[in-house]
Amino acid sequence: MAEKDLSALFLDTLKDIYYAEKQIYKSLPKMAKAASSDELRAAFEKHHEETEGQIERLESVFELLGKPARGKKCDAIEGILDEGKEIMEEYADTPALDPGLLAAAQAVEHYEIARYGTLRTWAERLGIGKAVKLLDETLAEEKKTDEALSKLAIAAVNEEAA
Amino acid sequence: MAEKDLSALFLDTLKDIYYAEKQIYKSLPKMAKAASSDELRAAFEKHHEETEGQIERLESVFELLGKPARGKKCDAIEGILDEGKEIMEEYADTPALDPGLLAAAQAVEHYEIARYGTLRTWAERLGIGKAVKLLDETLAEEKKTDEALSKLAIAAVNEEAA
Repeated sequence: MAEKDLSALFLDTLKDIYYAEKQIYKSLPKMAKAASSDELRAAFEKHHEETEGQIERLESVFELLGKPARGKKCDAIEGILDEGKEIMEEYADTPALDPGLLAAAQAVEHYEIARYGTLRTWAERLGIGKAVKLLDETLAEEKKTDEALSKLAIAAVNEEAA
Repeated sequence: MAEKDLSALFLDTLKDIYYAEKQIYKSLPKMAKAASSDELRAAFEKHHEETEGQIERLESVFELLGKPARGKKCDAIEGILDEGKEIMEEYADTPALDPGLLAAAQAVEHYEIARYGTLRTWAERLGIGKAVKLLDETLAEEKKTDEALSKLAIAAVNEEAA
C-alpha cells in the first residue's frame, strides 16, 4: 500500500474532481433543457463545452503523474446535484425555476472552486509546475462562470418579479 | 399547498442552510480534535463559535418571515461532510491529515458562500432588508474564514514537506 502522504491525497482528490466533472458534464444538458430563459440555457450550454476542456485538463494532470485517469465516487457532488434535481422537479413550470437552477449551478461552481484551489496549492508544493498551470486555467474559468451566474441570478429574480 | 414562487424557494433554501449549519456545528469539534497543528485546531474552534452566531442569524431570518426555524435534510452538506470524515479516517496519523482537513473545511465554506450569496440576492428581491443585512454579515464571515483557511493550507503543506 502506498504511503498516505500529500502525493496520495493529491491523487485521491484528483480522482474525486474527475468523477465530479463527469457527473457535472452529464447534468448540464438536463439543466439547459429545464431552463426557462434563453440566456440561462445558453450559459449552461457554454459551461457544458467548457467542462469538456476541464475534463481533458484533468486527464493531462493524471498523465503528468503517470497514473491512469480514473474517477472515485464523490459524495459531495452527488449531494449537490441531487439538490439540483429536486429543484427541477419541485419547481418545474414555476417562476422560481430559473432562480433555483442558478442556485444549484452556483453550488456546483463553488465546490469546483474549492477543489481546484486546493489541488493547485498542493501541485505547487509537490513541484508539478505543469499541473499548477492546468489547474489555474480551470480555476480561472470556474470563477468566471460563477460571476456570470451571479449576474444571471440577479436578472432572473427581476424577471420573476416582473 | 403554497404557490411555488421565489418566497417558497427562499424558505426551502433557508431550511437547507439551517440544517447544513447545524451539521457543520456538530462536525467542527471533531475536526478540531483530529487536527495535528495548534493553528488549525484554533481555526476550527473559532469557526465553531462563529457558526453558533450564524445559526442565530438564520433563526432571526425565520422570525422575520414569521416561520418556525426548521431544517430540511441537505444532501449536499451530508456529502461534503462525509468526504471530510473519510479523510479523517484514511489519513489519520499521516502528514497529509491537516491538508486534507483543510480541503474538507474549504469545501464546506464554499458551499456556504454559494448558499448565502443566493439567499442574499433573493432577500433583496423580496424586499426583506433586515434579512439582507443578516445574510451579508454571515457571507462576509464565511469569505473571511475561507481566506484564513487558504493561508493555513499553504502553511500546512510547507509543514508537511519539512
